[in-house]
Amino acid sequence: MDLTATTTQLAGTLADLVRLLPAKMYDPVLAGVLITADRDGVLVRGTDRERGVRLRCAATVHEDGQVLVPAKPLAETLRALDAPQVRLVVEGSRLAVRVPGARFALPLLEADLHPGVAEPPARVGEVDGPEFAGLLSVVASVASRDDALPMLTGVRLRGGPNRPLSMVATDRYRLAIATLPWTGESEVDAMVPAALLVEAAKQAASAERVALHVDGDRAGLVWGDSAIVTSLLASTLPDEGKLLPTTVDAAVTVDADALAGAVRRVGLFSEGPQIVQLDLGDGEIRVHGGGQQVGEAEELVKAEITGGRPNPAYQLRYLTDALKAFAGKQVTLSIQPGRRGTMFTTDSGQLQYLVVPIRTQG
Amino acid sequence: MDLTATTTQLAGTLADLVRLLPAKMYDPVLAGVLITADRDGVLVRGTDRERGVRLRCAATVHEDGQVLVPAKPLAETLRALDAPQVRLVVEGSRLAVRVPGARFALPLLEADLHPGVAEPPARVGEVDGPEFAGLLSVVASVASRDDALPMLTGVRLRGGPNRPLSMVATDRYRLAIATLPWTGESEVDAMVPAALLVEAAKQAASAERVALHVDGDRAGLVWGDSAIVTSLLASTLPDEGKLLPTTVDAAVTVDADALAGAVRRVGLFSEGPQIVQLDLGDGEIRVHGGGQQVGEAEELVKAEITGGRPNPAYQLRYLTDALKAFAGKQVTLSIQPGRRGTMFTTDSGQLQYLVVPIRTQG
Repeated sequence: MDLTATTTQLAGTLADLVRLLPAKMYDPVLAGVLITADRDGVLVRGTDRERGVRLRCAATVHEDGQVLVPAKPLAETLRALDAPQVRLVVEGSRLAVRVPGARFALPLLEADLHPGVAEPPARVGEVDGPEFAGLLSVVASVASRDDALPMLTGVRLRGGPNRPLSMVATDRYRLAIATLPWTGESEVDAMVPAALLVEAAKQAASAERVALHVDGDRAGLVWGDSAIVTSLLASTLPDEGKLLPTTVDAAVTVDADALAGAVRRVGLFSEGPQIVQLDLGDGEIRVHGGGQQVGEAEELVKAEITGGRPNPAYQLRYLTDALKAFAGKQVTLSIQPGRRGTMFTTDSGQLQYLVVPIRTQG
Repeated sequence: MDLTATTTQLAGTLADLVRLLPAKMYDPVLAGVLITADRDGVLVRGTDRERGVRLRCAATVHEDGQVLVPAKPLAETLRALDAPQVRLVVEGSRLAVRVPGARFALPLLEADLHPGVAEPPARVGEVDGPEFAGLLSVVASVASRDDALPMLTGVRLRGGPNRPLSMVATDRYRLAIATLPWTGESEVDAMVPAALLVEAAKQAASAERVALHVDGDRAGLVWGDSAIVTSLLASTLPDEGKLLPTTVDAAVTVDADALAGAVRRVGLFSEGPQIVQLDLGDGEIRVHGGGQQVGEAEELVKAEITGGRPNPAYQLRYLTDALKAFAGKQVTLSIQPGRRGTMFTTDSGQLQYLVVPIRTQG
């Protein structure tokens, strides 16, 4: 194998591959990257058996071939190079990374021992890359990071012919639902690990169109000759329909950034649990918090308010995350009585974000 | 007390004060900042008994007065504000931080319980602010962070009438000596805690001239109406004179950034201890490292070499730090035999940086 590539491109491809695989890989074979040079350039592949990643990068190939070398050291070496072009060439038991005046030699691993990287399952439809990535990052941020309840760590992808694609995630205290148009070539209902899906979508966001590939066991994102495939979660989420607001006490429309700023400042004054309260008034929200020890904070934010005058309280972090999802927009909060969720939406309704309020003494 | 100030200025002053005091203060009185408003603006002061900080900020004072309030909450509140002007006003048992539409109320602490902030000792001379801060940050970076040997955590400041000011620090593996002109109004020989001195010098660097104030117990930096005072360390460093090179095997002059880049890349290939070796050749240094498991790396760097052809090896981190201190410059390495230190200098000789090499099998 012998090839020359643009250093930044190849370094970027390897960095993406490493980011998409688990940080710690104890099996040295799985910690390797399969590099294949052929007439189409260079293909890098890796797997941890649960997920598989395949990324392509342009290269001038002087001699075809395939090698397995430690992925992270190669990624770090490429990232550290200043030279615009880099050559990868097999020299004995080493893959030499060569730039003028320097040679970095990585040990070749036994490619025969590598289990291979699974190909994506059947294609079910296609979405807009940047739109998919943007909505997904919000929905997935709601998912739990605690593996104790696996279904809370996933994003449920659902759609079909003549139905949009929906993405749902919840950690029980928050629920996010996004819908977006897709080509809907087949029915799909799959629970995909949220953390990987976000990283995958970030890569895919560089592509205009991204194809979804799903079967009963696995899901994949495919763009150009690049693909990321992962095993599905075994359990799925309950239907989100019954969680949507039915009895709305009050509706507030407000500039999301203005409210987020006030929440951030008032949130600095928290005694014990990080809580802020919203008192709905006439044409304004009074954001307040604090206590005897830390002092008190209050800030007024202009808003359009219809319905009653409730005063719900929220976990600072949950309220902050919800408002961030609507940054730069007018957001409407539909407030339900008691501890029933507050729904955050915009006019488009593309994103629905439910936050469960906190019970307070007041 | 009642005053109005430019938010960014006052926020910056409070942030500086908080940074110059220990991060954790268990005594609520010492965790407070003394704020004094008078005809000259506002003075903020804090202490942990070991060190004292006094910073001034412009303000329009509507009513003189002095209060003690929790320093960090005030700093965080001011930093979070968007409004260009902020008003601080005493309201009952609270200091209210007011901007249009918002009020943040901090509890007043009992100012009578505060021990006060020590005034600086006698003035001994004056230095150029930015030059002092720049050299000091290099010298202090060499000092140890381990309190087990207090003298290694300090910077020794020495000078006198007709003698420049010198600053020395060492952690036994490295030694840095900087000299700079000063007014030398008195003899001085003081061991100042390195960590605080660096933070203090960063603040002082905004001033053109910084005065040094030293007596047998304390040292201070004073600029304008701002001052930082700290207790001295009890033990001092041995004389550095005998550590300076006497027998030089070889001298290498090289672009510090070019060598640092090669060291960084080769350093990625380290098996066990993070070591890189420099083989001196004809007009070039061969930087190399690695091992059977991780692979090998080598890079050639152009250099002017006189004397022998030794091949010293260094701890990656120590070599990297030393070269960073000479960033953008041509640096000369004077290499002594065996494990005796390698001296890094420039033509000006203002900074001398000694690094002890590693013993290798080679």
